[in-house]
Amino acid sequence: MNSKQSDRRRFLKEGAVLAGLAAGAIRSASGQGPMSASGRTPESEIPENFRFFNERSRFENSVRKLPSAGESGASKCPLQDLHGIITPSDLHFVAAYGMNPPDIAPREHRLLIHGLVHRPLIFTLEELKRLPSVSRIHLIECVTNSYMFRKRTVHLPELRNRLTARDIHGNTSCSEWTGVPLSLLLQEAGVKNEASWIVAEGAEPVKHARSIPLNKVMDDVIVAYAQNGEAIRRPNGYPLKLLVPGFEGAFNIKWLRRIKVVDQPYLTNVDVSHKVNLRPDGKMRWYNFEMPPKSVITRPSGEQRLPSRGFYEITGLAWSGGGTIRRVEVSTDGGRNWKDAQLQEPVLRIAHTRFRFPWNWDGGEAVLQSRCTDDRGVVQPTLAELGKIWGVNFDWEYWKIASETGYNGEHFNVIQPWKVTREGTVLDAMYDAWL
Amino acid sequence: MNSKQSDRRRFLKEGAVLAGLAAGAIRSASGQGPMSASGRTPESEIPENFRFFNERSRFENSVRKLPSAGESGASKCPLQDLHGIITPSDLHFVAAYGMNPPDIAPREHRLLIHGLVHRPLIFTLEELKRLPSVSRIHLIECVTNSYMFRKRTVHLPELRNRLTARDIHGNTSCSEWTGVPLSLLLQEAGVKNEASWIVAEGAEPVKHARSIPLNKVMDDVIVAYAQNGEAIRRPNGYPLKLLVPGFEGAFNIKWLRRIKVVDQPYLTNVDVSHKVNLRPDGKMRWYNFEMPPKSVITRPSGEQRLPSRGFYEITGLAWSGGGTIRRVEVSTDGGRNWKDAQLQEPVLRIAHTRFRFPWNWDGGEAVLQSRCTDDRGVVQPTLAELGKIWGVNFDWEYWKIASETGYNGEHFNVIQPWKVTREGTVLDAMYDAWL
Repeated sequence: MNSKQSDRRRFLKEGAVLAGLAAGAIRSASGQGPMSASGRTPESEIPENFRFFNERSRFENSVRKLPSAGESGASKCPLQDLHGIITPSDLHFVAAYGMNPPDIAPREHRLLIHGLVHRPLIFTLEELKRLPSVSRIHLIECVTNSYMFRKRTVHLPELRNRLTARDIHGNTSCSEWTGVPLSLLLQEAGVKNEASWIVAEGAEPVKHARSIPLNKVMDDVIVAYAQNGEAIRRPNGYPLKLLVPGFEGAFNIKWLRRIKVVDQPYLTNVDVSHKVNLRPDGKMRWYNFEMPPKSVITRPSGEQRLPSRGFYEITGLAWSGGGTIRRVEVSTDGGRNWKDAQLQEPVLRIAHTRFRFPWNWDGGEAVLQSRCTDDRGVVQPTLAELGKIWGVNFDWEYWKIASETGYNGEHFNVIQPWKVTREGTVLDAMYDAWL
Repeated sequence: MNSKQSDRRRFLKEGAVLAGLAAGAIRSASGQGPMSASGRTPESEIPENFRFFNERSRFENSVRKLPSAGESGASKCPLQDLHGIITPSDLHFVAAYGMNPPDIAPREHRLLIHGLVHRPLIFTLEELKRLPSVSRIHLIECVTNSYMFRKRTVHLPELRNRLTARDIHGNTSCSEWTGVPLSLLLQEAGVKNEASWIVAEGAEPVKHARSIPLNKVMDDVIVAYAQNGEAIRRPNGYPLKLLVPGFEGAFNIKWLRRIKVVDQPYLTNVDVSHKVNLRPDGKMRWYNFEMPPKSVITRPSGEQRLPSRGFYEITGLAWSGGGTIRRVEVSTDGGRNWKDAQLQEPVLRIAHTRFRFPWNWDGGEAVLQSRCTDDRGVVQPTLAELGKIWGVNFDWEYWKIASETGYNGEHFNVIQPWKVTREGTVLDAMYDAWL
């Protein structure tokens, strides 16, 4: 093996610039090194916690974010602490509608398929698990992710600009889901010719339900019973959840118990509550359920701190409800220059995609942002561009006013800027232009 | 949408044969259906367990298997309960060497790189997390997986044939790992020309260490700090683990603290303890560290029960330490006929691969088995074929005798047969030929 000094010089020249970092590392050799006694524990019996399950280290304290007062019960995922594309099931975000999740005994649970079908069917869980199954890594994202918390807190000086990636963007997560294609169950039930939609309903007290177009259902919707290898966690819909890849999060019906095949969209309580908006051209966007392309840098991100100048890998997540991420660009100078980030393989359809970008921080103020493009060519917009789509003037006056504006934050996928100060503090820079 | 009776007839003809199953489902409609009150809970505050983390349902009780008396502290992964390819970090198998895992404070942990390098380096965790990283979905498998437990229990009539997929094959798991390529760290340290191996060492009391060829290290070895999106769980090596994809499990050094670059393999305590075997031709296989292709049907599998005849999806996992799974074949008639199973995309290098195969159980006795082939064309062997490789006659006398034979169960990747009895009970059928 040849690894010569010349190799090393070339590596440094090519921009990874580890020099400052490595110098810091060398200095720490005089401190507590790996040969110290730290980390050793006396041999003893393995505690029960480590026999049946692998516990977290007690030094790891990443948790979800509780909803603030006035918000509904969304527990936000700590995106800034995550690596790769799989969200641990422990930390998957939950929009819980302020309630204790149902405590369903799986042996008693049933899935009913009825309505415009030749043969209504009822399935037990064990029956579903005998059927042909699929596994897919898919994201779920709440319809107002990236908007609601900022809108609600921007008038609070103690919070403004102090938001984290979890605060702003934490209503999305990505898991490997396993279950039965709903198309297969409907094929068994025999869908009648006049059918064009379904209504899917959960078992929770409020009977959360959504209308879903039949063409989407026959394309890629899954009746899922597993998440990241094991049963779906209770707050995520145990024992059955409807996966509707790329649609607004509330379509992914938890505690799924009923699918009715119908001939038109029904206005369920959720459907009518906050999804009707007029665009400037007078058209409605109500039937636009697909979440648009979005990306966010998760490290460095809000409330993190860079300890010293030198090399940092910028990393983050990109996704699109409409397909596969094809490109992520990163700017470190406030949007003047953009360069392609590296996408981590495998890049999967309607899944979080990890991107990485090498950066050498010179110690000056910097604004970091990412912009993604999906395989349909749709590009993540600026705030001004999104304003045109929705007919909203997203200026400072807009953000200051907490009252309703007609736009409720749906599909808010604007480019997220993070400002790195000379002190190394990272702040949400969305409002900087107006402050 | 057209889904006519004729479509349905075609579907049934094509072999999914849900008829018996669906009839059973219809009958259950008269019992407790989805409209019953089951699963509803009164609205109340969300308990803390559901705020910060998503807990399992109390009805889910899949756990790892404790080691039996005389075994070292391996906690086996319940493969028969898993779906997809991601093993939940909770349930990743652990070969713990009978000890309490180190309780390492991450701020005090260091990674030392020294030996035949121009510039020894010490890294803190925060320094490592600034460097260019990769995420890879990789399996880990213990060198004696699929052999040791069977060999130790075959003389016990109460256990013989009653083993589960977890009992026999549970020393493998698959996670998404994130960290820094070790090649990058060694490039920074500047490897000297005479270097050809490394020795990697953990921080636990026994100082587990292994010698690893430098060409493997420069190819795909990762210094990992994350597992399935979050910090590596404590028993799996928190805060740092060396990922050596496809090599025997014990090469994946947990609680990694030191990498020494050397000019030859060093015989560490682990290296010398049980890895020297002569083949019939007098050659040693000691330097064959790569785990061979293996597959196992996980459903139906040992100790499961089929409640009724009719359609079942046969599913399982295949993997190869040498590359990517290209083919899995399934036989349901004891090996006379084989048909290709479907592989779940994405099929990844040195990762568990989920396969699926439709099967209509006619109620008679059946023997189910799977056989995989990797992208180098290596095929999973029969017991007789593996015996030739290792120079071992795996007859009944061999299994009965608990004493040492010279072969210690390394790389035991023979085809696993499961017998389905007329009662629907599934048994390990490995010894049937001799009983």
